[in-house]
Amino acid sequence: MTTPTQRGPDPRFAAGVALIDGELMPIAEARIPITDTGFSRSDVTYDVVGVWGGAFFRLGDHVARFQQNCAKLHLELPFDGEEIARVLTEMVRVSGLREAYVDMICTRGTSREGSRDPRTFHNRFYAYAIPYVWILRPHDAMDAVLTRTVRRIPETSVDPTVKNFHWGDLVKGQYEAYDRGARYAVLLDHDGNVTEGAGYNVFALVGGRLLTPARGTLRGITQRTVLELAAEEGIPTEVTDISAEVFLGAAELFATSTAGGVMPMTSIDGVPVGDGRVGPVTSMLRERYWKAHEDPRYATVVDYDG
Amino acid sequence: MTTPTQRGPDPRFAAGVALIDGELMPIAEARIPITDTGFSRSDVTYDVVGVWGGAFFRLGDHVARFQQNCAKLHLELPFDGEEIARVLTEMVRVSGLREAYVDMICTRGTSREGSRDPRTFHNRFYAYAIPYVWILRPHDAMDAVLTRTVRRIPETSVDPTVKNFHWGDLVKGQYEAYDRGARYAVLLDHDGNVTEGAGYNVFALVGGRLLTPARGTLRGITQRTVLELAAEEGIPTEVTDISAEVFLGAAELFATSTAGGVMPMTSIDGVPVGDGRVGPVTSMLRERYWKAHEDPRYATVVDYDG
Repeated sequence: MTTPTQRGPDPRFAAGVALIDGELMPIAEARIPITDTGFSRSDVTYDVVGVWGGAFFRLGDHVARFQQNCAKLHLELPFDGEEIARVLTEMVRVSGLREAYVDMICTRGTSREGSRDPRTFHNRFYAYAIPYVWILRPHDAMDAVLTRTVRRIPETSVDPTVKNFHWGDLVKGQYEAYDRGARYAVLLDHDGNVTEGAGYNVFALVGGRLLTPARGTLRGITQRTVLELAAEEGIPTEVTDISAEVFLGAAELFATSTAGGVMPMTSIDGVPVGDGRVGPVTSMLRERYWKAHEDPRYATVVDYDG
Repeated sequence: MTTPTQRGPDPRFAAGVALIDGELMPIAEARIPITDTGFSRSDVTYDVVGVWGGAFFRLGDHVARFQQNCAKLHLELPFDGEEIARVLTEMVRVSGLREAYVDMICTRGTSREGSRDPRTFHNRFYAYAIPYVWILRPHDAMDAVLTRTVRRIPETSVDPTVKNFHWGDLVKGQYEAYDRGARYAVLLDHDGNVTEGAGYNVFALVGGRLLTPARGTLRGITQRTVLELAAEEGIPTEVTDISAEVFLGAAELFATSTAGGVMPMTSIDGVPVGDGRVGPVTSMLRERYWKAHEDPRYATVVDYDG
């Protein structure tokens, strides 16, 4: 990677910075070849880690998941885990961003001499850091629908635990939500169980137990964090199948994502969840989640002065 | 679009030419923003038309399908059908390519001011023309497997008639084929019926009838051409469900694609199809397919001297 000679943040990167072909550049200039099969076959995996208050949150866990997912797709990374962490840290440092959304991407890349055999392709690594992304603005709540027009791509077709860009079903769900007067969608699987939405896992508080879907979803790191925090608070948790009926009857609902943390869902299919206000368990977990960002178990502080 | 001042082919574009943000450039320089959701959500549709012997094959049909698919995804094109045809023709003309693979792409594009609402995005049109792509080299035959490790993404999740880049299942099928000593894969759906492979439809000659799958696949224009040509030759055709058993017992098998035309499949799951040689119906249709490229019903001749 090109190392800037000047230390400290670089104002050219304040709106975001990307690493393309080993070079740092402003996010607005960051481009990938149109012939990269990461685009033309969506043959790619990625991961996103958050930076909050100048520290990465669970950086090691995100990088480890990314490496595992690359291996599952037979994608070769040019860097080991420590080098990826170093590269991401350097990007955040030069951007000066204290709250950032940091993306690492590995694509199958481009064909050698016109071959269509993916084993022969030249895999590519990209990364970028941009100002923090909110799926839901702070102090807002989600109004969601369980979609009727689309089902989540099944695990037998595309492995959802390998974080991917196959969002056709999720985007269709978003359009259905808008058509039905809501802003967010949660997709069912082909057995009628709840899965996830466009970039978030979901949780339901049912009979005092905190449930989250066992199948058909990414194993989110925010989801994992919430399961850990709930356990620490003595709330029983279960990773299990959740039918539409059980989900619709929950006392509290919320979604989780690196891009927004713990996001209350106070309306589902046009009906208020509970009394329609953010529930006490959701509220407590949201507070614990942001508090956990100061916990040295999870936080990796960025040295912006390099 | 930038119009070159000089007429006739431009040697800079001999290896391929792309149209990005309204500008023509050599394919090797053609890049798209890393933030385009055509990449980061695979929120995109595309179409590919072939040029053979200096003429487009069924240009109007490909452009019309592309326009319909953009409409289905709520994507807005900056051009009408005639303008798209004109732009693609201009690209082929300046490339000088007599045999070309011509791609038109529309992506959801990039977010305005950080919004995640796809309705507010700025849709983008890209196109390129490169030397003709062969899924199968001429005079070669496909050795294929019916995949066991993966099923085609169902229509209830992603509409396969809207040509898309959700190839995770197809690429996994390719890897399975390699593991099983073959080079090509055909995917079953969740009901156990045959669908398609990575960029091709399939046909089976069974009891003197030519069958092709009714569901879970792109409605290919090469597929449509073969159905028309077979009908003209008095071969009964049927668009229907085809079980794995029926497919494996076929007298002849072949695949169809703009990138290769009619491609004989002489081995399936390690067993020869029929006597293991290219069958007479396949052979006749392959010949008729290439002959049809001279038919004024289908051909749009490119004027390379402008």
